Amino acid sequence: MTLTGHSLIAGQTVIGEGKTTNGFNPSTNEALEPAYTLLTEEQLKAATAAAAEAFASFSTLDPETHAAFLDAIADNIEAIGDELIVRAGQETGLPAARLTGERARTTGQLRLFADVVRQGDFRGVRIDPAIPDRTPLPRPDIRQRQIPLGPVAVFGASNFPLAFSTAGGDTASALAAGCPVVFKAHNAHPGTSELVGHAVTKAVKDLGLHPGVFSLIYGPGSSIGQALVADPAIKAVGFTGSQSAGIALMRTAAARPEPIPVYAEMSSLNPVFVFEGALKGDGASIDSLAAAYVAAVTGSSGQLCTSPGLLFAPAGAAGDKFAAAVGRAVAACAGQTMLTAGIADSWNAGTQALAAAQNVTVVGTGTPGPTENAPAPAIYGTEVRDFITNEVLHAEIFGAASLVIRYSSAEELIEAVNRIEGQLTASLQLTEEDYPTAAPLIPVLEQKVGRIIVNGWPTGVEVGHAMVHGGPFPATSDARTTSVGTLAINRFLRPVAYQNLPLELLPAALRDANPWHLNRRINGNVVPSDETAEVSA
Amino acid sequence: MTLTGHSLIAGQTVIGEGKTTNGFNPSTNEALEPAYTLLTEEQLKAATAAAAEAFASFSTLDPETHAAFLDAIADNIEAIGDELIVRAGQETGLPAARLTGERARTTGQLRLFADVVRQGDFRGVRIDPAIPDRTPLPRPDIRQRQIPLGPVAVFGASNFPLAFSTAGGDTASALAAGCPVVFKAHNAHPGTSELVGHAVTKAVKDLGLHPGVFSLIYGPGSSIGQALVADPAIKAVGFTGSQSAGIALMRTAAARPEPIPVYAEMSSLNPVFVFEGALKGDGASIDSLAAAYVAAVTGSSGQLCTSPGLLFAPAGAAGDKFAAAVGRAVAACAGQTMLTAGIADSWNAGTQALAAAQNVTVVGTGTPGPTENAPAPAIYGTEVRDFITNEVLHAEIFGAASLVIRYSSAEELIEAVNRIEGQLTASLQLTEEDYPTAAPLIPVLEQKVGRIIVNGWPTGVEVGHAMVHGGPFPATSDARTTSVGTLAINRFLRPVAYQNLPLELLPAALRDANPWHLNRRINGNVVPSDETAEVSA
Repeated sequence: MTLTGHSLIAGQTVIGEGKTTNGFNPSTNEALEPAYTLLTEEQLKAATAAAAEAFASFSTLDPETHAAFLDAIADNIEAIGDELIVRAGQETGLPAARLTGERARTTGQLRLFADVVRQGDFRGVRIDPAIPDRTPLPRPDIRQRQIPLGPVAVFGASNFPLAFSTAGGDTASALAAGCPVVFKAHNAHPGTSELVGHAVTKAVKDLGLHPGVFSLIYGPGSSIGQALVADPAIKAVGFTGSQSAGIALMRTAAARPEPIPVYAEMSSLNPVFVFEGALKGDGASIDSLAAAYVAAVTGSSGQLCTSPGLLFAPAGAAGDKFAAAVGRAVAACAGQTMLTAGIADSWNAGTQALAAAQNVTVVGTGTPGPTENAPAPAIYGTEVRDFITNEVLHAEIFGAASLVIRYSSAEELIEAVNRIEGQLTASLQLTEEDYPTAAPLIPVLEQKVGRIIVNGWPTGVEVGHAMVHGGPFPATSDARTTSVGTLAINRFLRPVAYQNLPLELLPAALRDANPWHLNRRINGNVVPSDETAEVSA
Repeated sequence: MTLTGHSLIAGQTVIGEGKTTNGFNPSTNEALEPAYTLLTEEQLKAATAAAAEAFASFSTLDPETHAAFLDAIADNIEAIGDELIVRAGQETGLPAARLTGERARTTGQLRLFADVVRQGDFRGVRIDPAIPDRTPLPRPDIRQRQIPLGPVAVFGASNFPLAFSTAGGDTASALAAGCPVVFKAHNAHPGTSELVGHAVTKAVKDLGLHPGVFSLIYGPGSSIGQALVADPAIKAVGFTGSQSAGIALMRTAAARPEPIPVYAEMSSLNPVFVFEGALKGDGASIDSLAAAYVAAVTGSSGQLCTSPGLLFAPAGAAGDKFAAAVGRAVAACAGQTMLTAGIADSWNAGTQALAAAQNVTVVGTGTPGPTENAPAPAIYGTEVRDFITNEVLHAEIFGAASLVIRYSSAEELIEAVNRIEGQLTASLQLTEEDYPTAAPLIPVLEQKVGRIIVNGWPTGVEVGHAMVHGGPFPATSDARTTSVGTLAINRFLRPVAYQNLPLELLPAALRDANPWHLNRRINGNVVPSDETAEVSA
């Protein structure tokens, strides 16, 4: 399709009255056409007002139409075909194979949320039937369900132009909850966002939904984002990006007359802990472990939320061998083009600061890639005492860089973990003989991370029911949830109780006859939808 | 027992090095002995440090010991006997019958949470088994559970010296989640708090738990409260009280280097909507409705979070009859002693401001009670247009006062609801003929309240599985939850995922053999604990 270069508000193309911005090809350092017109704060209100207007009908949609809508978005994204992969590649420098996989993840999670909507457990039905003859007072009939919070603002991430963008995990889970979405495109991939935006808009139209269910807006960096979060019509925020931007949105949300939740996924060092046993194999197994680490560090040019920025390796001969193998593995790596010139600049500044820190050595570096924005991957080394005492070594470097930290005892590991901030993940490389050493670390890690991985790498976040892509601040703004996986829908819900409502006034989800075939918690215990349990005490 | 007049930190009596404060008998306007010594901020750290130290063992307690602990607290509270009711009556002016009921609610909710701990659904077990042969990539084994957030600060409320105090709903749900509690006593009932504090401490000791699981602290008003919320060891806050105090705690929590959730239940007008049909009966039925309203307004001297502060009644003859009946009912009411002289003063100031507002009339007043702090209940009247345009009429008056608002159309009701802030409850008085009028109001109310009641009154909050005692800001700081009922436990939990962990390193809750007999969500669907489902894809 021909890109319009404009926002898409409630199904209408809206020409921004602000400045314009262009996508940028980081591989060629050239601007991409068309220019995108940016909305003014005044124009933004059309999107939030439409979302507020759409809420009443969208939040009460029957499950089948609701699920079909999510499926239709997935179908429409696939129907764009290669054009989407080509444009996303131009705008991000990411290779087609990676983008094809990311597209599958994006459509897969839309369809997973369609299943969640059909299955209905997210509605959280609880029924405590009346007990009229209870003494000293009768018990009333009380029923509870989860309802959507209201219109949600979603911010696209730079590093996943599909899976954390226009119809990515935040949008999918908010729509699945029954919340209209106002999506603020990341200015680094406006064309990709527009292509997907039309796919969503077409699904809204084809299903006959209120057009305010979805708007795609382009605006000047932070100002329109702040205005969006401050808008009274917006009731929650999903964000993936930098810590500074995330914290700025948290502040704005907390300062509103009505504060709202912000789900910001911000930063993570994703420490890896290599135990002695993991290095006891032959040289080939050590090489293989080192290669896997370097692959996790350099994949997607290291621009993944879960890229391992720290690796703790034992002091001594086996650790030395491992470090040498890491050095060889990274030396064989060429740089890959980063998402934007700005991100490449930040990577350069971050690695220079790390290299200049006291007692930091170079474990190995690769070669620069074929473009201006493809710096050579770099892995540094230090000792655990330096890591514990020097905050500079805790700074996240977004991109293909990591720090190998040598340690001598399990106690040092625990001390180091207690010093780090909240993270998305922690990974352990070990064998059975390491279990006694690793076991005491696990409860300490639970306090610091959202996911613990054994003999694997944190990259490659599985989209399922059990995934947690979250963690204590500052990894995210709210450790009580996840931005990937089906639990993410809970972010956009709140409970409401209904006391003694007659059948005619009860929402369908709560009626005795169970027309939506929901599993229900009756008197505190789940009764499956296929059981014809009497709703009585 | 002899009250010590001191804080109880991790099982030890600690003499506060600050000033002292005394309980105060609002019925006699006399100070109560003993004086209570107040902690300094420095002394507070012993409590938070002990809570942090207790976390590792308490958060991993086996379910049976954990549940037995909650049961033991309930037993120990009952074992205090009449002394507790007598002291609470002296400190609050509340009658013995009310306090006896409140004690039953307090012990009942502790035992309910013991059942929740035994049942185990709050652990939120999710298992997505590995799919080794999936293409293009194998699926790893991922398991999720909810873990406790960490030590919780709980603030006692003035109006429920037992059920929202030392071992009240916030404490019970935090302890049930596995979080140690540092409880800041309300200075209006220090003796009651101490009696219950010893009951909790005895249970900690008898079950052999780490003494830091519970501390009871006395401190100067807001300063020690702010210090407690700012303390890095504290990971969540439960509070019931005024909007200004709640918002101050929210600000402190949001400004921490690591922001933490605050669950503040702050204020509510609890509007009641009387529809035409409800007034179509004979004079006796109108009198009965009016009497029930006045009883809800004046019960516990109106000092309930859910006391109805607003009632919308139709204009016209039936509404006039109802208003006259309300006037007669309240005229027959004597004032009851309020919790503190300060609360009585605030009530006087609030009712004077309301009475002085434009187009506000007096529907009826009662007679002053027998003590200095027992003002005459008062019910005022106005028109819906005045309510919609005058914010003064939206101010909460804590105590036995309410405002009858006359309306002429369903549209006016919706307009009025859209003007009010977030509330805990809304109640509808209606008959079958009103269903068509009431139905469109319900989705509007859902956006404003946490609980909707038909043909009942909001007071008397049932403690069960389906209750929501919560609602949009400023009723609470966080609409996503409840402070009463079993769902309250979710406030103190967060999810953690475990990827490919060997059996030996997996928490008991997540092991294939299901040693804790938990219901588990396997591949997205709940499998009951008694089914020997294979944990495989």
